[in-house]
Amino acid sequence: MDIKNYIRDIPNFPKSNILFKDITPLLKNPAAFEYVINSFYREISSIKNITAIVAIESRGFIFGSALALKSNLPLILIRKAGKLPSLTHKLKYELEYGSDTLEIHQDSLNNEDKIIIIDDLIATGGTIDAACKLVKKTGAEIIKCLFLIELLALNGKNRISSNKIKSLIKY
Amino acid sequence: MDIKNYIRDIPNFPKSNILFKDITPLLKNPAAFEYVINSFYREISSIKNITAIVAIESRGFIFGSALALKSNLPLILIRKAGKLPSLTHKLKYELEYGSDTLEIHQDSLNNEDKIIIIDDLIATGGTIDAACKLVKKTGAEIIKCLFLIELLALNGKNRISSNKIKSLIKY
Repeated sequence: MDIKNYIRDIPNFPKSNILFKDITPLLKNPAAFEYVINSFYREISSIKNITAIVAIESRGFIFGSALALKSNLPLILIRKAGKLPSLTHKLKYELEYGSDTLEIHQDSLNNEDKIIIIDDLIATGGTIDAACKLVKKTGAEIIKCLFLIELLALNGKNRISSNKIKSLIKY
Repeated sequence: MDIKNYIRDIPNFPKSNILFKDITPLLKNPAAFEYVINSFYREISSIKNITAIVAIESRGFIFGSALALKSNLPLILIRKAGKLPSLTHKLKYELEYGSDTLEIHQDSLNNEDKIIIIDDLIATGGTIDAACKLVKKTGAEIIKCLFLIELLALNGKNRISSNKIKSLIKY
């Protein structure tokens, strides 16, 4: 299945000269969505001793939830600032304009965990870089970072160990 | 399985005198999460002709995604303002302080659809009421609204047809 057929280009979103990759047609097609989750599952099923799936808010939740269920692994959330109610590790990171903050519950992972991080897209890599740093604060080891889409021109792979990155489709 | 054992009370979050129901322990337990998704699935599997699962950002994505995959149905997103890239229906609704806006893609559903809306929690019912109004703008029919948690004291059921509401646990 060519899952690129289910990704829609939307010009000038969220601002002019950005060509946005819209995943909603893929989510609307059960066969395509199942194909994506199965592809992620194949990617991790050969790895021993994975202890959790870590999903980044909010489109990462869509893929992380289904993958956690299929692989019978705990689902851990990385959320935007102020959303997680218990004690958190926080990390502020720079965006093109301004900054953003991600959080993870301090008790969600520990130094015996070997985890997979999942999100829908890697662009400049700022978000996944912040997510990796957050996970490391818990002591957990990052085995792989999974993405549906990678925007090659933005070189996100350079931000983290590129051998840990796996994306299903590339532009 | 008593899934209340996997919901954690966090006092004074997000502000004082609120007892927050934290679902992260449930997500961290694969058996409990699977039990929840299976319970949602049983709830809809006897209903004929459902055409889609509509999930509300962002914790609704967690349950909606897994349920859509399990039930082989399209997953449609209701998102916060400014997140959906194509033409949307918008609905602004009042919160205790201020207001919020939800959106749905105009082409995501039509008047032949019979859908299930899913979110993690119903409190005052403001969000689900707005979500129902949004879905109706597409012409789709709402068959049922599913929640993991219902806070009975806040009477959310009074905001929409209460016979359409199904929550797995009540406080």
